[in-house]
Formats: sequence, C-alpha cells, structure tokens
Amino acid sequence: MNQLIERRKVTARKEKPDSASLGFGKYFTDYMFVMDYEEERGWHDPRITPYEPVHLDPSASVFHYGQAVFEGLKAYRSEDGRVLMFRPDQNIKRLNKSLRRMSMPPLDEKLALEALIQLVELEQEWIPIEKGTSLYIRPFVIATEPSLGVRPSKRYKFMVVLTPVGSYYGDQLKPIRIYVEDEYVRAVTGGVGDVKTSGNYAASLQAQRKAEELGYDQVLWLDGVEKKYAEEVGSMNIFFIINGEAVTPALNGSILGGITRASVIELLKSWGIRVREEQVAIDDIYEAAMRGEVSEVFGTGTAAVISPVGALHIHGETIELNNGLIGEVSERLYETIAGIQVGKVRDSFRWVVEV
Amino acid sequence: MNQLIERRKVTARKEKPDSASLGFGKYFTDYMFVMDYEEERGWHDPRITPYEPVHLDPSASVFHYGQAVFEGLKAYRSEDGRVLMFRPDQNIKRLNKSLRRMSMPPLDEKLALEALIQLVELEQEWIPIEKGTSLYIRPFVIATEPSLGVRPSKRYKFMVVLTPVGSYYGDQLKPIRIYVEDEYVRAVTGGVGDVKTSGNYAASLQAQRKAEELGYDQVLWLDGVEKKYAEEVGSMNIFFIINGEAVTPALNGSILGGITRASVIELLKSWGIRVREEQVAIDDIYEAAMRGEVSEVFGTGTAAVISPVGALHIHGETIELNNGLIGEVSERLYETIAGIQVGKVRDSFRWVVEV
Repeated sequence: MNQLIERRKVTARKEKPDSASLGFGKYFTDYMFVMDYEEERGWHDPRITPYEPVHLDPSASVFHYGQAVFEGLKAYRSEDGRVLMFRPDQNIKRLNKSLRRMSMPPLDEKLALEALIQLVELEQEWIPIEKGTSLYIRPFVIATEPSLGVRPSKRYKFMVVLTPVGSYYGDQLKPIRIYVEDEYVRAVTGGVGDVKTSGNYAASLQAQRKAEELGYDQVLWLDGVEKKYAEEVGSMNIFFIINGEAVTPALNGSILGGITRASVIELLKSWGIRVREEQVAIDDIYEAAMRGEVSEVFGTGTAAVISPVGALHIHGETIELNNGLIGEVSERLYETIAGIQVGKVRDSFRWVVEV
Repeated sequence: MNQLIERRKVTARKEKPDSASLGFGKYFTDYMFVMDYEEERGWHDPRITPYEPVHLDPSASVFHYGQAVFEGLKAYRSEDGRVLMFRPDQNIKRLNKSLRRMSMPPLDEKLALEALIQLVELEQEWIPIEKGTSLYIRPFVIATEPSLGVRPSKRYKFMVVLTPVGSYYGDQLKPIRIYVEDEYVRAVTGGVGDVKTSGNYAASLQAQRKAEELGYDQVLWLDGVEKKYAEEVGSMNIFFIINGEAVTPALNGSILGGITRASVIELLKSWGIRVREEQVAIDDIYEAAMRGEVSEVFGTGTAAVISPVGALHIHGETIELNNGLIGEVSERLYETIAGIQVGKVRDSFRWVVEV
C-alpha cells in the first residue's frame, strides 16, 4: 500500500507530558488517521491529518442510534529502540467482527493494519519508555449520516488516535477487589456482549459505580439468564486457578473474546497447564475457595495485561484469595507477556509486529 | 424562566421542503437548542442557536463508551392555528430516567420543557399542516469529555433539534407484518432496555434487517431469558385484543415504557375495555389466534401512534390476523389519539400542551 499522505502538517508539535502524569487516555498525539465511508463509494480517502475536532451534524447517527465500535492495543519501545505492537492483526479482525454485528461496513484488514503502523511510525517519539508505559492505540468507527431514521447509517468515519499511557500498576502488580454483581446485567446471548461496541460500556457504568461505593475495584458480571455463571470482570476476561488447572468462562456469545485471554490460554497450554473453557458457576468457585482449592484468580486485558484478584465479594460475603498476594501463575504470565511486548522475552508465538 | 436567548441569528432561512417529500428525520429547521454540562458548574448556558455542526474532540466519550440518550415527540398545528404538543412532560421525565440509568446528570425538568416550548414557538412556521404530518422534536444528551477512561463523562451536551415529518401511513392505516425474533435479543432485566439509550437501537439493527430480508416489516422481540414472552415490536410497544380484553407485556425492566402505551391504557380503561399488563407468552398468543380469539394486534409509539399488525410469523409459521384489515379498537384508538394531538377531539385527559 502507498504511504498514507499527511494532507496537512501540524503547525507546532505539542509538548509531551511527563511520564509520571500520563494516566490513561488524557493526552493525544499530534496526528490521527481518518477514512470515510459512503454507501455509494465504499471506504475511501485514507489519510493522516492533524489531531483535531470532528465536525458532525447534530442528527449524526452515532449520537442517536449508537452505531460505534472500537479497539484498543498498545505500541511499545524496546530497550534496543525498536517499536513493537502486540498482535494488531487480532484487533483488526475483532474490529471487523464488531462492525458486522452492528450492521456497519467492514474494513480492508490490510489497509487498517497499515494505517495503524504508519501512524505509530510517524508518532513514535510519543512512545514513553518508562517501565509499564506505552502508546495506546484507539481505532474506532462511528456512524455519521445526518438522519433520524432508525436504520443503519449510510456514512461512517474510521479514525485512529494515539495516547501515551502510564503504568497501570505503578511499580508492581497490585491485587484488585471484585464485587460479583447479581442485580445489573452486562449482556446476554443473542445480544452484543461479544463485540466491542460503545453501548456495552455505557451500560456498565452504573454497576461499576455501585461496586466502587461498596469498596471494590471492579465488577464480576454474571450471565443475564440465570445469574449463576461468571462472564467478565469489568472490561477484562477472568481466569481461576483451581487445583493447578486454569478455568475460564467459555466464549458463549455474551463475552468479549479478549486477545490477552487468547494469548494467556496459549501460554498456559505451552507450559503444560491444563486450561478448561467452560461454564463457570460462581457457587462452584465459592465452594472451591472455601475448600482452599482456588490458588489464584486474575483478569486479563490490554490495559493491565494481568490483573490479580485479591478478594471476591459473592452473595454478601467477601472471600480473600491467596492472602491478598500475587499468585505464581499470574506473575509468570505478566512477566512473560509484558516481556514479549517490549522485546525482552523471546516471542516464540510470533505475536509481536515490528513497526 | 427567562427567554432563552438566540445568541446568533441565522443569516438566511432554509427553504421548507414539500410536504410530500418529508419522510422521517431528513430535514432540519433553522435553529436548535443547546445547553452544556461540566462537573464543576452543572448544567449551564441554555441557548437557542442556528442549527449547525457540533465540534467534538475525537476522544469525546460518546464516540467510545456510548453515553447517549434521547427522546422523541411531536408538535402539531391545529385547524384553528394553535401549536400543540402531546404530553411533553412525560418525555422529559423519561429522559431523566434514561440519564440516571446511564450515569448521566439529570436535567431541570421545567427548564427542559421550556426549552422545547420556546424552540417550537420560534420555529412554528416549520410545522407542516397536511393530515398526518407534524414537527418531530428530538431532545438528546451526549457525553463530550475528551478522555478514554472508562467512567462517566464529566461533560455533556443537551440538544434539541426539530424535523418536519411526513405521514407515517400516507392516507390510511396499513397493517404491518411482524417477525417474532427468537435468535437475537434486544434486552434483559438488569440491563438498559427500559431506557432510551442509543446502544439499544444499534443493537437492534441486525434483527430488523433479517426480518426485512424475510419479507416482514418489523421484529417482535422476545424476552432474553426464556425467549418465550413478548416484549416490544421494533421500537413500539405491543397490544393484543383477546376475547375483547386488551393484553400488553408488563413493564418488567427490559421494555421501554412508551408514552403512547400509557395513553392507550388510559383510553381503553375509560372505554370500559379491560387491560391486563402481564407476562405474555408468545405460545399462548399463537394458540389463542388458532382458536380465533385474537381479534386485533397493534403496536403503539410516537412515530405511528397506532400500528395495526396484519400478520405474525411465529416459529416458522405465519398467522394472518383479522384478515389483514384494521381492527375496530385500533381504528378508534388512532382516531382518538391523533384527534387529540391536533385539537380535533376533546382532550379530557389534559394531555395536550399549547405552545
């Protein structure tokens, strides 16, 4: 593919923020990628432009009927100065899955990947280098047709923005406290819980607030039908280590198939640890924990990679796990994946793409 | 409340479209209403401005995490020249319910109602006068904070736009064909199906497309848990007339509480027709229809008021209802509500607000 033209240069580069103050998604780089879709022309006019406001008609479909999907992945600077991305092809593939489910037009996967690579290459000075930091990449597609008819929009914008982000944990992994939510429901089979669409996140905010008010960090969602089976933690997938085996909820149509989740499964198997993807009844977890058989629980996701769980609140009771410490498996997974991401651990699965 | 200032006048009024070509939500009037929210200041700066594009940062929360809610109602021109709105207080109340569920800040209900009234008053020349036409009012609130953190936005915009809309049916009521959807699910108790948030609509598009491809006009959603009970039709509520009684799904937490639905219930009761709000098993409907006990089925909503159903596709079979004709109750409801809306039928419930 040709180089995506920078149609306009920025007049002045922004000042780069201190690594210590990065947080998540607060600062944006100088450029972004944009491409338009019209029913008659298909996707067209891919371009890199200055990062600048989007002008939309007040009746643009995204404001009213919520056709919006996104992805999230990271670029890292290795110690020897290379720029690395972790499994970007998987994000593009999932973006297309989301687009199709939401009646939005899929992207050419090669072109979309090339857009990410060229934008990151152009903006590589923005990649922070301190341990745990990275350049977060946010590809997203929104419906832009100015019409209030309830039907798929005939116009869309695909955009990619970049934001340098801080270490999720500071210096070390810190176990989180989880509230098992049995009132609010995130998604149900036949719905859109297995794709990354904006409405899933808006719908989760109230339960997240409730968990925080009760002194927990995140919600563990249960299935919407029987409210018996574990689904996801906040916006991460969840794993339980029980009697030395890993158990994680199967992708049943209401759970997002995480790319970190898939990578964790591959790694565990390569280490000879059995992984069961199945229905996970929360009461079985409770009983196994009571018998001392649950040695570790952890979430997996792009933001934190591995997020150890130190406490689970189930039906009015709080179970402390592994004495609030990081488990062996969690630590090994974190060190391995985070190591592969920055080029410090050998990438035997060929997960890393060099920009 | 003071008059909402027109901060800037439009330089030229737009040309008004032909009544015959109005359609739904294609043309917008010259002015709109806007008010901003910031966490520190609350809702502030209510104003009427020219209808113009919204400028948002690419990281504005609405594009990524979908905090967006809306309402829809209509203004009518009566034969004697008055401007009438139908139960706008109910829309504002429901808007606040939606805002709270989506972790968004509620509005001052008086101010919001006043915004609608003043904007419609200013734009009253845009109200079409042909039978069945009206000025559709679309209040909506979107999250505008530029941040990718998954949490409630700290900034919002409340906007109201107006669009002249054509007659839903042309000259007369036309029965629609309904596909009972048993694969896709709209919502489940504990989710957000009982509020008017954008994600519900995006999530419904695929099933709607499937129904159209199979030769039906709309989907009848079943509950997401057992896929046994009727919930809504497309974006309308549904009523069945069985043995002379009206039956409609109870508001169970996954169904939107329609304002037309509430009005229909009040009217039917005032006519001495018994109304049962309860769980409605689709198999019971099927059997009642087979026994010839279902005399009418109709949807209720702002767009069509009353939408008679001529055919129901259930589990592979299509049931024709009332020989594809409009039922007596449907017709009487339509004539009464549409009559009250345009000031032709006495408004004994005080539903109409004169601008």
